[in-house]
Amino acid sequence: MSTFTIHTQKKEECIDITTRVAAALEEQKISTGLVNIFVPHTTAGVTINENADPDVISDFLKGMRAFVPDSGFKHAEGNSPAHIRSSLIGVSLCVQIDNGALVLGTWQGIYFCEFDGPRTRKVQIAFYAT
Amino acid sequence: MSTFTIHTQKKEECIDITTRVAAALEEQKISTGLVNIFVPHTTAGVTINENADPDVISDFLKGMRAFVPDSGFKHAEGNSPAHIRSSLIGVSLCVQIDNGALVLGTWQGIYFCEFDGPRTRKVQIAFYAT
Amino acid sequence: MSTFTIHTQKKEECIDITTRVAAALEEQKISTGLVNIFVPHTTAGVTINENADPDVISDFLKGMRAFVPDSGFKHAEGNSPAHIRSSLIGVSLCVQIDNGALVLGTWQGIYFCEFDGPRTRKVQIAFYAT
Repeated sequence: MSTFTIHTQKKEECIDITTRVAAALEEQKISTGLVNIFVPHTTAGVTINENADPDVISDFLKGMRAFVPDSGFKHAEGNSPAHIRSSLIGVSLCVQIDNGALVLGTWQGIYFCEFDGPRTRKVQIAFYAT
Repeated sequence: MSTFTIHTQKKEECIDITTRVAAALEEQKISTGLVNIFVPHTTAGVTINENADPDVISDFLKGMRAFVPDSGFKHAEGNSPAHIRSSLIGVSLCVQIDNGALVLGTWQGIYFCEFDGPRTRKVQIAFYAT
Repeated sequence: MSTFTIHTQKKEECIDITTRVAAALEEQKISTGLVNIFVPHTTAGVTINENADPDVISDFLKGMRAFVPDSGFKHAEGNSPAHIRSSLIGVSLCVQIDNGALVLGTWQGIYFCEFDGPRTRKVQIAFYAT
């Protein structure tokens, strides 16, 4: 298992972590298997989406804001929308490994999703060889 | 693989199952690996969220109600919103195991999500050692 | 790892792929383990939902349309709602294997979700024996 730290800069943002996951895989010398990417937080998440046009990610964040109302909740910290977005997107993601590489589609990138930043965050990566 | 039963009491509720997953892990004597928590139902789900302030969970359920309309669907049983919520949250969750314990963040709990109760439900837990 | 192709016919549709995943498992002769189903696209997804009444699936697609607005986004291709739906539903799904079979609930089917068709799509299946 390896862990890395992310310092988010905004209230809501998505950070491409594909290169960091691939670098952790390279150290493992695993040919075939599975990697689990896990976010140990309750107001953040991890997802896969397009890594070409940055408008896709800004539209994604806009969409996430649009359908979770920003007010009307009880939790005193005031960040319930971020908690809800975390459960909708999820904090655990599995990606297949083949020929020693992540098997991702042409346009896919792995994104850490910050929904209540800026904060210092951790990402846990664990590999399972077959 | 082990299975346990939950008797939900309300139409919609989240039940913290972290202790039950941890207890199943303890029986397995696995040091490092992955656990998959799977809900074999189509109107329920499994998620991770904050286990400290119970308002987070009640706000989560309120949010889930807010953005899936309760009517306007065709399915004769009338529980389409619960089916939609199940797919949004998901029925399959992987958590990493290290040093014989679940690797969860400080505030994270694993929750069974009932979207169409009260019902008798099952949760399947499978472990994969590395 | 095995891959199969799907030719979707509509803008939005869900296609039951349970039989294809089960057929791929049969070739593997795995008794106990985990299967990961992965969609290498950013405007599609994979989910589990009811395989009995087809209204559940059409209601699911209706719900997905209802809470992601169809316009107001910047991405020039015009398919940002499909990218958002992909991240909400997810592109990676794990299902447990026991006694050489997928362990699914009575009413559960595995569905490929097209959110920006018609297109030619791929589904990657990888097995992990225990």
